[in-house]
Amino acid sequence: MSTELSELIQKRISTRGFLDQPVGAAELRRIVELSSRAPSWKNAQSYKIIFISGQPRISLLAELQAALQAGRPVRPTYAYESGHPSLIKKRMFQLGMDLYGHLGIDRKDKAARDAHFWRNYEAFGAPVIAFFYIPAGLAEWSLIDLGILMGQMSLVIESMGMASCFQASLSVFPDIVDRYTQMGPDWKMIVGMALGYSDPEDPGNAFQSSRAPLEEVMQIID
Amino acid sequence: MSTELSELIQKRISTRGFLDQPVGAAELRRIVELSSRAPSWKNAQSYKIIFISGQPRISLLAELQAALQAGRPVRPTYAYESGHPSLIKKRMFQLGMDLYGHLGIDRKDKAARDAHFWRNYEAFGAPVIAFFYIPAGLAEWSLIDLGILMGQMSLVIESMGMASCFQASLSVFPDIVDRYTQMGPDWKMIVGMALGYSDPEDPGNAFQSSRAPLEEVMQIID
Repeated sequence: MSTELSELIQKRISTRGFLDQPVGAAELRRIVELSSRAPSWKNAQSYKIIFISGQPRISLLAELQAALQAGRPVRPTYAYESGHPSLIKKRMFQLGMDLYGHLGIDRKDKAARDAHFWRNYEAFGAPVIAFFYIPAGLAEWSLIDLGILMGQMSLVIESMGMASCFQASLSVFPDIVDRYTQMGPDWKMIVGMALGYSDPEDPGNAFQSSRAPLEEVMQIID
Repeated sequence: MSTELSELIQKRISTRGFLDQPVGAAELRRIVELSSRAPSWKNAQSYKIIFISGQPRISLLAELQAALQAGRPVRPTYAYESGHPSLIKKRMFQLGMDLYGHLGIDRKDKAARDAHFWRNYEAFGAPVIAFFYIPAGLAEWSLIDLGILMGQMSLVIESMGMASCFQASLSVFPDIVDRYTQMGPDWKMIVGMALGYSDPEDPGNAFQSSRAPLEEVMQIID
């Protein structure tokens, strides 16, 4: 076992507080160069990653926030899922309990919960936001491939001393994002990611979520 | 940049020839223990991985082969995708050209192409087959999460000196697989994976697929 990969995996977290330290184009290219070695269906690599930083990032986040504050109904490319089996609902509930507990947020304290919610729409202060696209006519198999890429990318980022957080929350208004990325109607935006350098002072970054017991997620038949 | 992760990524291939060397339960548990640290929507971890080896693996592969040979129409949980944009079709075509070229298979030699095709239904000789499931009522977002897990898993496997190949081909008859995995109607089988030790003598294992130029898969807006 390579100790190093296991260490990367064990220290990777969904980072929810970033330093105001930019990530350069060379680093972004290196991230994709390595991550895109991930396998895909017939090597289709049917994805495109758009990184947004600087002034466009600021304007985009402001637009997303304004749309939400105006009460515009969210319309992600894929509706958020519900109807999880109870075993899985328990894990999701546990995450909320653990994270709020760690941050000292009382679940009845709506102001504190709201403040925490809105951090999503600041991309937690990350200097770069990535948006992941797939071709408009493709679906499930391409989403698996996209996930494979994302899984490897999050480790590549970690190995470069940076941090990330995948953000379904940034997927709520694809039309707004599309105006910035200029991807056109042949591609659809699936999900976002905050990218940058972790802020070691942010209390949230000392939190690591738990995992289900192995027996719940695997079985061996022989 | 951690040299080691980049080396793992750069040497990982879709392995299409395995040694007759078993993988123990301790290794399988270690693979899932590390891989399941992958991030998922609200930490739902909405997947289950079933590993099949030994006699069940032999019987299962024989059943899949027999069903195909009998001309039974394939019925994967998600229909295979078509309608890829031409840019992406080109990559898929290139893979076929490159792989057949590497193996010395003439595209007009149907017997050689068939022999190559049927290796899929031997799981390329891998001693273990993994099947990835998600809850029956979930869809796109869970497929992304499943992909994130799979992407990290393929690197964990590599780091342990083993090899893998994700196999959509093993997804063609979920009902047959379900009889072996006993997962019941609350879960749906998505995709398979061959797992084991790479056969260094297998000529296919000296092949590595190319990747699209960075400009095709990424863009920076700032």
